[in-house]
Amino acid sequence: MKILRYEESGATHYGIIEESGAIQQLAGSPFDSLGTSGETTSLDRVRVLAPIAQPRIFGVGLNYAAHAAESGKEPPPQPMLFLLPWTAVINPGDNIVYPKQGQHIDYEGELTVIIGKETKDVTRENALDHVFGYTIGNDVSERVIQKAEMAQGCMLICKGFDTFKPMGPYVETELDPTNLNLTTRLNGEIRQQSNTSDFIFPVADLIVYISDAVTMLPGDVIMTGTPAGVGPFQPGDTIEIEIEGIGTLSNGVVAE
Amino acid sequence: MKILRYEESGATHYGIIEESGAIQQLAGSPFDSLGTSGETTSLDRVRVLAPIAQPRIFGVGLNYAAHAAESGKEPPPQPMLFLLPWTAVINPGDNIVYPKQGQHIDYEGELTVIIGKETKDVTRENALDHVFGYTIGNDVSERVIQKAEMAQGCMLICKGFDTFKPMGPYVETELDPTNLNLTTRLNGEIRQQSNTSDFIFPVADLIVYISDAVTMLPGDVIMTGTPAGVGPFQPGDTIEIEIEGIGTLSNGVVAE
Repeated sequence: MKILRYEESGATHYGIIEESGAIQQLAGSPFDSLGTSGETTSLDRVRVLAPIAQPRIFGVGLNYAAHAAESGKEPPPQPMLFLLPWTAVINPGDNIVYPKQGQHIDYEGELTVIIGKETKDVTRENALDHVFGYTIGNDVSERVIQKAEMAQGCMLICKGFDTFKPMGPYVETELDPTNLNLTTRLNGEIRQQSNTSDFIFPVADLIVYISDAVTMLPGDVIMTGTPAGVGPFQPGDTIEIEIEGIGTLSNGVVAE
Repeated sequence: MKILRYEESGATHYGIIEESGAIQQLAGSPFDSLGTSGETTSLDRVRVLAPIAQPRIFGVGLNYAAHAAESGKEPPPQPMLFLLPWTAVINPGDNIVYPKQGQHIDYEGELTVIIGKETKDVTRENALDHVFGYTIGNDVSERVIQKAEMAQGCMLICKGFDTFKPMGPYVETELDPTNLNLTTRLNGEIRQQSNTSDFIFPVADLIVYISDAVTMLPGDVIMTGTPAGVGPFQPGDTIEIEIEGIGTLSNGVVAE
């Protein structure tokens, strides 16, 4: 089932979206129930929003074997984790703002997991039962700042700039996250093409590892890492990230 | 003025606390107004809560010159920043849970800043106008995990365990953050004793640096780093952190 968050006539709702573009409005929070309100609309009448308004975003680094190799790094012995600020989230179609401090800014197409239930101390076998669904994220990163931050052993600013976390458009609730094609296009040209089967730490392992320490909650988001082919973009560019079974996240870029 | 968040008869309020322990309940959110509701109570009738329910927590590393020296590190060329999950926050008097994975866990007494207004692109001169007030935090850290995470260039788990971020008890709105004595006691013995005048990056500089990239919001919290004297604790211990003009944050420790 495909879920979206949208704005229509100034109000925000969740809904179920069908192949035809028809939308059935949900009665309330999708984390409580997928019951519909009876109201309907359609994709051409609404503004599609990022699936979660103010998520806690758990980021993962170097999680594809081939991307670890292109970065000149050994595969990590445990997941590389960091938190990202929700103020960086933008909607599908919104522009990424290339900040004045930007020198080398890369796109990073990522399978993005949305947690559906309180999650603590789960097993590998039941971890995926705690997932609400899967969406698409772009973990935009300023590399000059990232290098300086990582040399100090922690990071925030490089990935935390306002507008650096486009997310959406839809949340697919019935996907197998272990075998999904991901394609990133810059101005229509393919730059990343991989499959989540190349994950060093599959989604279930990430949930087990994080929730062994941190209680995860409905609406928490895990950006699962990006495959090989990361590269820089400039104001005026358009970045599209497509994941099989979910859809395509598209964002333009403007200078600050 | 000293503000606290508290629970009484199952309801949560903010209030103004006086020297005598008398509390004047606020009518609403302290970020909107410090207007009182007319209801009063007293400290012995309430449970004191961490000042913010679900804060975004901006952590700062190695921000005291003497602590950078004891860690064997050069002072950082820019602030060392990371985000921490609010699920780690506990109230004054609550127990820190020493997790099963714990091998070497340190206390870290810290001046903790609470942002009061939307903050983006501010100057050093007006940065402190965006502060609501100051409280106390304990940036509890598992060092074995921290070393492994920092070697990878990012961190989360080492400082993000549930219960690892005690905060409170009060928020003082009229302090000069550039000259405050901070004392940490482990089971009554002094372990950290310093002054915020030793900051490498003063509070105003931290706000300027973060908000140059990330829009900060009312209720955001900055844990400003810890002075020399960090050290391990064990289940059964009690950690007290006292900051001049604010009060004392005290928490026990239990095994998971």
